[in-house]
Amino acid sequence: MKPLDYHSSGVNYDVLDEFKRHCQRSAATTTGLLAKHGVTEPAGIRGESAYLLETPDEYIAHVEEGLGTKNLVADALLKLTGECHYHAIGVDTVASIVNDLITVGALPLSIAMHAAVGNASWFENTNRARDLAEGFAEGCRQSGAVWGGGETPALKNLVCDDTIVLAGSTLGRIKPKELRIAGQLQAGDAMVFLASSGIHANGLTLCRDLASRLPQGYLTPVTESQNFAQALLAPTRIYVPFIEACQEAGIQLKYAVNLTGHGWRKLMRLDEPWIYRCKRLTGEGIPPLPIFDFIAQHAGLDAKGMYGTFNMGLGFAVYVSPVDAMHCVGIARQVGLPAWIGGVIEQGTDAAGKPRRAVEIEQLGIAFEGDSLQIRA
Amino acid sequence: MKPLDYHSSGVNYDVLDEFKRHCQRSAATTTGLLAKHGVTEPAGIRGESAYLLETPDEYIAHVEEGLGTKNLVADALLKLTGECHYHAIGVDTVASIVNDLITVGALPLSIAMHAAVGNASWFENTNRARDLAEGFAEGCRQSGAVWGGGETPALKNLVCDDTIVLAGSTLGRIKPKELRIAGQLQAGDAMVFLASSGIHANGLTLCRDLASRLPQGYLTPVTESQNFAQALLAPTRIYVPFIEACQEAGIQLKYAVNLTGHGWRKLMRLDEPWIYRCKRLTGEGIPPLPIFDFIAQHAGLDAKGMYGTFNMGLGFAVYVSPVDAMHCVGIARQVGLPAWIGGVIEQGTDAAGKPRRAVEIEQLGIAFEGDSLQIRA
Repeated sequence: MKPLDYHSSGVNYDVLDEFKRHCQRSAATTTGLLAKHGVTEPAGIRGESAYLLETPDEYIAHVEEGLGTKNLVADALLKLTGECHYHAIGVDTVASIVNDLITVGALPLSIAMHAAVGNASWFENTNRARDLAEGFAEGCRQSGAVWGGGETPALKNLVCDDTIVLAGSTLGRIKPKELRIAGQLQAGDAMVFLASSGIHANGLTLCRDLASRLPQGYLTPVTESQNFAQALLAPTRIYVPFIEACQEAGIQLKYAVNLTGHGWRKLMRLDEPWIYRCKRLTGEGIPPLPIFDFIAQHAGLDAKGMYGTFNMGLGFAVYVSPVDAMHCVGIARQVGLPAWIGGVIEQGTDAAGKPRRAVEIEQLGIAFEGDSLQIRA
Repeated sequence: MKPLDYHSSGVNYDVLDEFKRHCQRSAATTTGLLAKHGVTEPAGIRGESAYLLETPDEYIAHVEEGLGTKNLVADALLKLTGECHYHAIGVDTVASIVNDLITVGALPLSIAMHAAVGNASWFENTNRARDLAEGFAEGCRQSGAVWGGGETPALKNLVCDDTIVLAGSTLGRIKPKELRIAGQLQAGDAMVFLASSGIHANGLTLCRDLASRLPQGYLTPVTESQNFAQALLAPTRIYVPFIEACQEAGIQLKYAVNLTGHGWRKLMRLDEPWIYRCKRLTGEGIPPLPIFDFIAQHAGLDAKGMYGTFNMGLGFAVYVSPVDAMHCVGIARQVGLPAWIGGVIEQGTDAAGKPRRAVEIEQLGIAFEGDSLQIRA
């Protein structure tokens, strides 16, 4: 059996990323429209995970994001066993949105839900609909933000029958402006890693394909007490309280990364040539997540394939001055988010002295070079 | 042949509206989270078309909206004749978002796109993809706002193959706070109506069903120079410049309605018992839109069915003091938006003196009572 990867799963990031870059170029032509509103666009914000507007005394932040296809796993499990995980799906939807927002140092004020169905009959399962609404509200509570409206269209022939597309947006703020996380790194900075709760909301298309290849499908045991679907459906951690607590403690966050899509390659999100040397894959006392071994084994993926696609237990990362690193880990633990010092930022030069941008995972002998992550115009 | 309506078209507003009300109740439980941010939620904002946060010196506004299914018409026409209308679809997507935002008096600062495909191969038609991106940028220009990012996921088994779900969000502002449109009406206030360019983005599911019943389908002529699909695909008007110009002229806008979904029933969006007496269906010199007669005739809908579903040439309405009405019409024309004085607000009491909320369309002998529009929790 051929190993699964994102191309065989129908997600071709190349053509997608090309369209994104086209959008970024078209979008850049509209920046001048801000002048008459008395606000400006901070240099370098395009291509970051959140958009910012600068006013004299604050930044206003804006993110539009989607859950992806995770709810299809919840639908499958509901059909197989009657278990409803839509409360977790509601939390996941919020997490997808706010975990991007906070990477620039903004805290969410309001969050809006977009829930598009193929047919309004989706809402006839009122328990599921209620769980979704209450889960979304729970996500807002964990984020310290208000649920400020949204949209619930029925889109026949656009959204597949009996499914729901979940997405939304958030409006946030950075105040005072010094709290902005702007990507100013120095060699020697520490990488503080925060644990994920599972795969979060990325790599789902591949996992759904994998389920279809397993004789027991989603009910294949991952551990003695958990099947594949249940393991996939662990709700995404929300890292807002961590960022807020760091800001309150006066820790300067130099950069922050929400680990999605491209796995650990995302650690080198910045354009500048730095080497992100990862020294520890997890922290003491943090329980292992057997879901990743399960996927690697059954999908036939090697460590590089796994670390380039999945979060592998690392949900969120911040880069700080080495003197702040332990404090940062302590703060994370105080707000209930397991964390560890994962590695160090090094000068980005190769053996010949040329600029090099790369993620090195020492323990596994893996290096991701800069050309494997192209997300900017 | 049975007449088409929204129930036969598979859009059951009852069960959808029930879920929306459930969301509104769950959302209301999160309002207390705003306190620590030093912002508040203005009374009565839930159920309006845009969400607001109040700060000491401004309101920040947030809207999440979607285009609906209009792009399926563009896809059909592209397949039939090779004509690509995705530039218009890009404008429509922005219009759907910003025309809601401005109903509370906010002007958009940034707009984000959400474009979800079933398969990344959608982007392989690079002309279509470019038109969409450039149309979205054009919508932002017409709105005076920056295109501030977005999201473009591939959602296999959630979004139908070869289609795209278009939505997005906007972040806006009301500054100074007196510019807020808050729904304080008086008997005698005038209704200023602004012309639509066609069906805009509502009623499309019904129109798609209609096309499937016509022998010539989307190519059925509506006029000598326009077929059904072309008539449907007229880009939605963007009313932002009108609201902005009214604010600059110092006109107090008492309420504003973006005509979507429920047709002219939307005119009674406010909870209070008022009678919205419509006296003129269109303005002098405004060209008729033959698309509506075409739909009425072929779908077998009477005037009440049509006015309760479609905008019927009325895209946006504002309610103002009678002394401001002509000025308002003149401002609309100056920014290129045909307008007319459409009617008057009357005390909401019935013959027996009891409270009555209704839209009366005199010329057609139509009355929509309050119970035909229930969009609040």
